[in-house]
Amino acid sequence: MGPAIVVHAGAGAYGAELREHGGEVAEVLRSVLAAAGRRLAEGFDALTVVVGAVETMEDYGRFNAGYGAALCSDGTVELSASVMRGADRAAGAVAGVRTVRNPVRAAELVLAGEQVLMIGEAAESLAAAAGLELWENSAFVTERQRARLRTLAEAAESRGTVGAVCLDGHGRLAAATSTGGINGQPPGRVGDSPLVGAGTWADARVAVSCTGDGEAFIRAGVARRLGGHVESGASVAEAAERVLAEVGELGGAGGLIALGVEGEVSMPFSTQAMPRGVWRAGGEPEVWLS
Amino acid sequence: MGPAIVVHAGAGAYGAELREHGGEVAEVLRSVLAAAGRRLAEGFDALTVVVGAVETMEDYGRFNAGYGAALCSDGTVELSASVMRGADRAAGAVAGVRTVRNPVRAAELVLAGEQVLMIGEAAESLAAAAGLELWENSAFVTERQRARLRTLAEAAESRGTVGAVCLDGHGRLAAATSTGGINGQPPGRVGDSPLVGAGTWADARVAVSCTGDGEAFIRAGVARRLGGHVESGASVAEAAERVLAEVGELGGAGGLIALGVEGEVSMPFSTQAMPRGVWRAGGEPEVWLS
Repeated sequence: MGPAIVVHAGAGAYGAELREHGGEVAEVLRSVLAAAGRRLAEGFDALTVVVGAVETMEDYGRFNAGYGAALCSDGTVELSASVMRGADRAAGAVAGVRTVRNPVRAAELVLAGEQVLMIGEAAESLAAAAGLELWENSAFVTERQRARLRTLAEAAESRGTVGAVCLDGHGRLAAATSTGGINGQPPGRVGDSPLVGAGTWADARVAVSCTGDGEAFIRAGVARRLGGHVESGASVAEAAERVLAEVGELGGAGGLIALGVEGEVSMPFSTQAMPRGVWRAGGEPEVWLS
Repeated sequence: MGPAIVVHAGAGAYGAELREHGGEVAEVLRSVLAAAGRRLAEGFDALTVVVGAVETMEDYGRFNAGYGAALCSDGTVELSASVMRGADRAAGAVAGVRTVRNPVRAAELVLAGEQVLMIGEAAESLAAAAGLELWENSAFVTERQRARLRTLAEAAESRGTVGAVCLDGHGRLAAATSTGGINGQPPGRVGDSPLVGAGTWADARVAVSCTGDGEAFIRAGVARRLGGHVESGASVAEAAERVLAEVGELGGAGGLIALGVEGEVSMPFSTQAMPRGVWRAGGEPEVWLS
């Protein structure tokens, strides 16, 4: 089984955003996949590749992560991200950061240290000390998100989050997820994206990144539970369907991407759309919007 | 099966603290169990009872939660807590709060709202708006913890956290956990205690509260995994042993309390000591230190 990478750009409605900009979104995902594929072909490890992929998606401006993320009710941006390496289950995450240009890079820094989750200004200080680029909070704010906050664009459209899961040439898995939360959320609210076991998981068998109604994903313990199902013998596809059904039982909707150590890919979602794509060794990037 | 409650006051070494104050610690736990038992006999629900039990432990002053919690490297206190109700898996948590006298009460407030996890000043504002008691941060600091920070008392002694799991007279489960983190931790560090699925879990079958090396508990997804094992047919005791072994494989130590819907109790720990106790309908509180 050669290397592979899967990415998503958030589960939600197939609304005006995708009707008008779907082509560009697909192009961005193809570009992210192609770049990740080149790095995998060059021998980069899974963790490095998912961090790079998510970083590019954080920079794009139309995804709900990094620049262009959803706004809190007070018009500011609060960002969260997490990463996990399957081989040794090392993990790192940041929540509630307001100045780190690429939260996934801050999560990668935390993974390299003794902690797993760092929040707020302390996480920002850590990023600053390591030389990561810092922005004024207002620099993350796009006119698109200002308009969405004014109209409180339906929650179903604003679940978006970005994520990546990867199997590298040495059979090692990794996962990364990054988000700006929910349009109009109260400052201080943290969803599933930065929580290892809720929105992100990687072990020796499977890597997972989730998107959707964060509270339901936490209450279902989605990512950890999926890993448990696979450990107990379920296929990656069965495990993914089961945890998404569990989210539904709790009244939530969303989606996830999961990649098994044999290269099995599952990308179920219970919303109208979930922009996503797959690259496999020797192939071209494949992308879907709904 | 009548109602039951199980509490813990943190896994760690059997050090000077327990040698000198073990009798008092045991007495506090007995008192917490007796009060919880009276409430259960009066028909209170599991969630209310675990919150009350943890609140009393937060107030005691010698446990690492609420008043008397461990100090961060800068000498301040940062508190975290979570609660979960098994019947509907409603959950609430706060992390990195510095002024809420009883963090578990703030977690209970969050459970009643739309979010699951609120951090920092936003969580404090929520608590203040609901009329919860606020303290100056310095009011949480005890001379005992100042001395521990000065000497950086061995980490093995400072894992302590408090927690409770309960089965009420209607067969409903709930769990709660509260902590001040690790002696000398960097401000902004968040461990497993406020993370649903890591340090706390409750569903229709089992309720769990963990204590120990928080990072390893997160990376093992302990509480959610335990719930999964039970769902898959393992006994509560088997499930508890398996997840604690998984923490060990990741280089961590600690303990947990788990209570099944048939009243099964498991309280394994891989440290020298874990003050803990059980009360069951019609019986007297039983308490152990190691």
